[in-house]
Amino acid sequence: MEEWISVKVSDLFDTVVSVFKALGIPSEEGKIIADVLITADRRGIDSHGVARLKRYVDGIRNGIMKPETAITIVKETPVSLVVDGGGGMGQVVAYRTMEKCIQKAKEDYICFASIRNSNHYGIAGYYSMMALKENLIGISMTNSAPLVVPTFGRDAVLGTNPISVAVPSREEHPFVLDMATSTVPRGKLEVYNRLGKKIPLMWATDEKGTPTDNPAEVLQNLLERKGGGLLPLGGGEELTGGHKGYGLSFLVDIFTGVFSSGAWGTDIYGKKNAPSQVSHFLGAISPDAFVGLDEISSNMDSIIRMLKNAPKAEGKDRIYIHGEKEFEKENERKEEVPLYWKVYDNIKEICQEFEVKFRL
Amino acid sequence: MEEWISVKVSDLFDTVVSVFKALGIPSEEGKIIADVLITADRRGIDSHGVARLKRYVDGIRNGIMKPETAITIVKETPVSLVVDGGGGMGQVVAYRTMEKCIQKAKEDYICFASIRNSNHYGIAGYYSMMALKENLIGISMTNSAPLVVPTFGRDAVLGTNPISVAVPSREEHPFVLDMATSTVPRGKLEVYNRLGKKIPLMWATDEKGTPTDNPAEVLQNLLERKGGGLLPLGGGEELTGGHKGYGLSFLVDIFTGVFSSGAWGTDIYGKKNAPSQVSHFLGAISPDAFVGLDEISSNMDSIIRMLKNAPKAEGKDRIYIHGEKEFEKENERKEEVPLYWKVYDNIKEICQEFEVKFRL
Repeated sequence: MEEWISVKVSDLFDTVVSVFKALGIPSEEGKIIADVLITADRRGIDSHGVARLKRYVDGIRNGIMKPETAITIVKETPVSLVVDGGGGMGQVVAYRTMEKCIQKAKEDYICFASIRNSNHYGIAGYYSMMALKENLIGISMTNSAPLVVPTFGRDAVLGTNPISVAVPSREEHPFVLDMATSTVPRGKLEVYNRLGKKIPLMWATDEKGTPTDNPAEVLQNLLERKGGGLLPLGGGEELTGGHKGYGLSFLVDIFTGVFSSGAWGTDIYGKKNAPSQVSHFLGAISPDAFVGLDEISSNMDSIIRMLKNAPKAEGKDRIYIHGEKEFEKENERKEEVPLYWKVYDNIKEICQEFEVKFRL
Repeated sequence: MEEWISVKVSDLFDTVVSVFKALGIPSEEGKIIADVLITADRRGIDSHGVARLKRYVDGIRNGIMKPETAITIVKETPVSLVVDGGGGMGQVVAYRTMEKCIQKAKEDYICFASIRNSNHYGIAGYYSMMALKENLIGISMTNSAPLVVPTFGRDAVLGTNPISVAVPSREEHPFVLDMATSTVPRGKLEVYNRLGKKIPLMWATDEKGTPTDNPAEVLQNLLERKGGGLLPLGGGEELTGGHKGYGLSFLVDIFTGVFSSGAWGTDIYGKKNAPSQVSHFLGAISPDAFVGLDEISSNMDSIIRMLKNAPKAEGKDRIYIHGEKEFEKENERKEEVPLYWKVYDNIKEICQEFEVKFRL
């Protein structure tokens, strides 16, 4: 038997929206969240797709997330916003705020928003790519649960804090950088653990803060908060640039939590069953702030082609552009997406529990 | 005998300014360049200090850099600039543009500048820190000579493309991230080569694009453009996050070269003795765009203390904040800076050649 089953995108969407409705999420907002999740599945980022449905269900049940999202604009200038997400659904907070950034950037060239008191918002790239549809440059960052150890530290006090930047092109796929600032996300350790494989020493540290190849130990230590955790991009030493990844993670906490007077570091998911206090940073920039869309999109085609056509390392036949693999997956998965049986069964159970029609 | 000699900062400044004057650089502009170089020495970033004087002298002699810097504003909006550096001195182009960004950010909250047709501008952090003096947030990036191979590529087609972001704090040293997007700069390979040491496999590749521990080979291949080069932050594999460092380097080329319709990738220093066509990106953001200086600087103190006070890894007694080591060095080196004898002799020779009084 295959490990996964192929389901229709439209059926999956309807099912997920129905679950959210049963949880008390208004219909328009449920559609936003469903689209963010299913876009992740379509782009091949399964870890952030409908596999997470259970976490949102539990989040609402435990009072971590509010089903109805009440957004407050705390401060507004022509080119910026400070937003309070009211402890609502992260996807809704980020979607609505990015809509406003886009509108403002069209009027005044640039708009940045620092957002406090929100929740997990799914893939960072969803919101930066919203800008692409309007021919704008998009930026998206979020802080997240403390899983990452700073250079020379023992405990996980920073999030995997992803950064996404999207820039429009003309004929080539647009550049969509969407990267956790840790070497790998926790999910990668879970995969290696399931397969009984050792992990590279650049990925994580044990409870003493020493690099380890044992994923089970790291995952257990993180669960029990015994010390250790994921390593920033560049690993555990200055010699391999670990302080740079640590700096990028720190930067995300500053733009999200510090600029909004929200939460950061160990205060994210700091208290059991209390609001998670995740902070985001979103931005839209009009190409007209610089040399304009025509030149920028054609320059983007040139730089992308320069990279793709550059000579390849021995044994390699392709140099990838950031976002390219994901756009190819998304095109393949217009009608159907594969779900692991475990995820499929999980959605089925949730549907049964909430007496929602399981359409898959 | 010591490897280095201690010289007075004021004497060094006067000497360097005199050399620049003899090269035809106007006095005010020479002072800017000297300050950028000596600030690097004071902050312990010797590789970007007066050790580079010879390169600027040669740059002007070979026609790569123009001694008189004529800056043109190609485009201006309330929150942005596109600037042409006229092939002048990178430090002057960046300093003058950052001054203008600061002034505009005070009026309209944010100003970003994308700059084409400039030259090597020294340490990226100099310009982001200019914003700190005005209680603003500063951003600085530059592209640079192609020394870095993209993931799965064989040849160096991207620069070490540094990113710097500076954020004001209250009592703690401010956060000053200033990082090349390669694992290490070329200078590190030169140091290991001189010491006859092997380099970590995360640093560089050979002419086939395979990670190597031989620094001499990499340096020679780069010189002869035979293939190979420095690896992006995260190394040569997706497994260790190399595609992320590659993405960050790419991002810098986009914000600098693409947004200004300048040059990027292999077109930087693309032709012998022709203008180097380096591009920069600078920005200033007012804290008033977000929760304001009082809250942001006090939030910064909190997050910095959270990190510094976090438990340390076994064998480590300190967690550093980005820029902290450099601020401590800068305070130690208020009056005097150490120069390697080689650098000292080099400056002496330049002074003799230009019949400038050697004051050291």
